[in-house]
Amino acid sequence: MRMYDIIRKKRDGGELLKEEIDFFVEGYTKGKIPDYQASAFAMAVFFKGMTEEETANLTLAMSKSGDMVDLSEFGDKTVDKHSTGGVGDKTSLIIAPVVSCLGAVMAKMSGRGLGHTGGTVDKLESIPGFRVELSSDDFKKQIEEIGVAIVGQSGNLAPADKKLYALRDVTATVDCIPLIASSIMSKKLAAGAKTIVLDVKCGSGAFMKTLEDAKLLAEEMEKIGKNCGRNVLAVITDMDSPLGHAVGNALEVKEAIEVLKGGGPEDLRQECICLCSNMIALEENISYDEAKGKVEEVLSNGKAFEKFKQWISAQGGDIKMIENPDLLPTSAYTYDVIAERSGYISAMNAERIGGASVILGAGRATKEDPIDYSAGIIIKKKTGDYVKEGEVLASLHSNDEKVLEDAAWVYSLALTISDEKVENKPLIFERI
Amino acid sequence: MRMYDIIRKKRDGGELLKEEIDFFVEGYTKGKIPDYQASAFAMAVFFKGMTEEETANLTLAMSKSGDMVDLSEFGDKTVDKHSTGGVGDKTSLIIAPVVSCLGAVMAKMSGRGLGHTGGTVDKLESIPGFRVELSSDDFKKQIEEIGVAIVGQSGNLAPADKKLYALRDVTATVDCIPLIASSIMSKKLAAGAKTIVLDVKCGSGAFMKTLEDAKLLAEEMEKIGKNCGRNVLAVITDMDSPLGHAVGNALEVKEAIEVLKGGGPEDLRQECICLCSNMIALEENISYDEAKGKVEEVLSNGKAFEKFKQWISAQGGDIKMIENPDLLPTSAYTYDVIAERSGYISAMNAERIGGASVILGAGRATKEDPIDYSAGIIIKKKTGDYVKEGEVLASLHSNDEKVLEDAAWVYSLALTISDEKVENKPLIFERI
Repeated sequence: MRMYDIIRKKRDGGELLKEEIDFFVEGYTKGKIPDYQASAFAMAVFFKGMTEEETANLTLAMSKSGDMVDLSEFGDKTVDKHSTGGVGDKTSLIIAPVVSCLGAVMAKMSGRGLGHTGGTVDKLESIPGFRVELSSDDFKKQIEEIGVAIVGQSGNLAPADKKLYALRDVTATVDCIPLIASSIMSKKLAAGAKTIVLDVKCGSGAFMKTLEDAKLLAEEMEKIGKNCGRNVLAVITDMDSPLGHAVGNALEVKEAIEVLKGGGPEDLRQECICLCSNMIALEENISYDEAKGKVEEVLSNGKAFEKFKQWISAQGGDIKMIENPDLLPTSAYTYDVIAERSGYISAMNAERIGGASVILGAGRATKEDPIDYSAGIIIKKKTGDYVKEGEVLASLHSNDEKVLEDAAWVYSLALTISDEKVENKPLIFERI
Repeated sequence: MRMYDIIRKKRDGGELLKEEIDFFVEGYTKGKIPDYQASAFAMAVFFKGMTEEETANLTLAMSKSGDMVDLSEFGDKTVDKHSTGGVGDKTSLIIAPVVSCLGAVMAKMSGRGLGHTGGTVDKLESIPGFRVELSSDDFKKQIEEIGVAIVGQSGNLAPADKKLYALRDVTATVDCIPLIASSIMSKKLAAGAKTIVLDVKCGSGAFMKTLEDAKLLAEEMEKIGKNCGRNVLAVITDMDSPLGHAVGNALEVKEAIEVLKGGGPEDLRQECICLCSNMIALEENISYDEAKGKVEEVLSNGKAFEKFKQWISAQGGDIKMIENPDLLPTSAYTYDVIAERSGYISAMNAERIGGASVILGAGRATKEDPIDYSAGIIIKKKTGDYVKEGEVLASLHSNDEKVLEDAAWVYSLALTISDEKVENKPLIFERI
C-alpha cells in the first residue's frame, strides 16, 4: 500500500477502505508518512469529503493511535461532555456535579485554555489547593466514592489527531466538517465514556460561524458515535455572546457556584439544564422532560451544590472558598468600560471579548504564559440590552494596572451599539 | 504575507496576485516555505486551477528561481524544441542539424533519460568521443561557427520547478494542466531561446493519455509563451506506438542518420519535417508550406547530414562512425521476439516497450545506473501491421544474455494482436 495511491484515490473522489485509512493514520503517527503527503491528503478531503463510513474509520483509527482510557470498571453510566469552545463557558463546572448527583459517572479529562477561550482545568485551579493531577488509584477511589472527577489531560490521547490537527492548522485544511468531527470524536472515544453530549457552539465567538455548518458538524459527530458504539447527542448553542456574565477563571467559578445554588444568569442556567437533561435522558433512557425535572430539582434543593463541594474537597480545593466565594482570589485593580453612546447592543464579538480577557491576564497567548486566576471581565450589558451613554458596559479585573486601558479598548471594539433594538437569538438553537 | 493565506485563497477559488505567487516560489525555493504547505497548495491548484495570468506568473517566477541562460548574443534566431517525452524519440538529433542549416540557432541543453524514455544526451554519448560538456567559450565558439550545439543540463535551471515537481510526484498533484505547463515552460524560458516548438505527445506511451488533455496542455503552454514574450507553438503527436523502429541509444543514432540522409521510417521522418517546418515558419515568419519546402530540400540534398557531421565532429564525436554507422557500438547478443499467433497488431504500449529496453540495458532504472549504449530494440511490426504466427515482431539487442528472455516477455506484453485490422491513427494529430 502506498500513501500516494491513497491521496490519489481520494483526490479522484474514491471511497477509502478501512485498511487504507488505518495505513495512513498509523504511518503518519509513526512518522513513516511525511507531512507533505498528509497535507495533500487533507486538502483532497477538503474538496472531496468523506462518507459516513470513512469518517467513522478515520475517527476510530485516530482514537486508537495512543492510549485508550478504559472506564468500563465504572459501569455503563459513564458520561462525558464536549464543547467546541466558547468564551465564558463554565458549563463543565456545573454539569459535572449535577449529573453525578443524579447517578451518572463523570470521570473526565479536560484541557487548559489557549487563545481566547479558557480551559476547565485552569478554572478549577483558581480554587486554592485544587489538584488537577490525581494518581490513578486516587482517581478511581474518588470516582467510586462520589462519581465525579475532572483532571488534566494526561497520557497520550489520540496523538494522530494532535499531529494531524497541527498540520491542518498551517495548511488551510481545518474547516472541513468530516475532519473537524473526527478530530473531536477521536479524543472523546479515547476518553472512554459511554454517553457523550456535545455542545456545538455557533456564532462569532465559535469555531462554527453559521447555524448550517454547526448542524452539519453536529450530525456528523452523532453519526460517528452511532458507528462507534457510543451514545452521542449534540446540542447547538449560541456563541454570539459570551455565556453568563463572567469571563476569567475565579470569576467563572463564582458564577458557576451561583448556578449550583439555584441562581445565576439565565442563559448559563438554561444551557446547563439543557446539556444535563440531554445527558441524563440519554444515559438513563428516559424522556428529556423527565430528565429535566430531575436536573431542576437538584439545582433547587441544594444537592448539586453539595456534590460540588464534595468534589472540590476530594481534589484538595479549599472548601471555605466555595462556601464563601468572596474569599476566592480577587484582583488588585478594577476598571469600568463606559458606553460612549446610547443605544441597543446589537452584537457582541465573543472572540474579541476573549481577547480582552487574555490582555487582562486571564488567559494564555502562548502555552508557557502564566495565568492570573483573579483576572477577567464581569459583563454588565449583553446583546439586546439598552445602554445609556456613560453607563457601565463591563468591569475589568486585573492585577496589572497597565493593561486595563488596552483591554477596555479591545472590549469596546467587541460591541456594536445600534439605534434599533435587535431580536435576541434563542440561546439554544437546536437539539439534533 | 503568509503562505497559509495563499493556500486558503486558492482553496476558496481566488485568483492569486503576482506578489503572492512570487512569495510562494521564492519562499519555497529558499526552504522558508515547507513542503507540507507547498503540497497542500498544489492540491488546491489541482482542484481550483489557475487563470492564464496566474499560470504565466508561476512560470516566470519558477524560471527566474535559478540561472537564466542568455542567448541574446546569438541574435533573434535562437530556437528550442521540447518534447513531453516518448519512447524511441530521437527527433532532437535530426531537428537540430536541419534547422541550423536553415539559419536557425539551436543552442540547446538536454537531459539524460530516466525510466522508460531515453535522453538526447545519452543518445549522443553513444557516439564514441562525443563530449556533452563544453566550456562556455567552446559552446559560444561552436554556436557562432556552426549554429548548433547540444550539451548536458548544467547550471541551476528553474530549481523551484525541480523542487516542486519532485514534491508533486509523491503527492498525486502531477496531472494538473497549469502545473504541468508551467513546469515545462519555466525550464524552456530559463533555457533562453526566442522560438520554442513543443512536441506534446499523446497516447499510451506519453504523459498525456488523451487528445483532449494534450490539447489543453498545448494551448496552456502557447498562452504562457505569448504572455512571456516568446514565440511558442505546440504540435500534438501520437505516442501510441514508439517513433520509428529503433529504441536504444546507438540504434536510435543510426536511425536518425537514415532520416538525415533522406530515408528512414516514414513516421519519424514526417514528424521531424512537421516540427522543423513549424520551427522555421515561426522563426522566419514564413508560411508552413514554404518552410516545409526548405526542410525537405536539406534532407534530400545532403545538407542536413553534412551539418550533422560538422556538429558531431565539433563536439568530438568519431566522424567515421557517422559516415559508416555499422561501426557504432553493437551488442554481443540479439534475440528475436516471435509472434505466438497471427493477426493484426491493434495496439502497442510504448511505456512497456520502453520498459523492455531498460531491461536490455538501454536505460536507467535509477540515476546511478550505467547505460549499455549498444542495447535496445529494433521493432519489425507496428500498429496496423499484419503478422503471421512465428514471424519476428522485434529483435532485442543486449550485452547481457540473461536479460533477453525477460525483455522479450515484457515486449510481447506490450502488443495487442487482434483478428480485425485497426485503422491507423494519424501520426500528427494537430497543430495548435
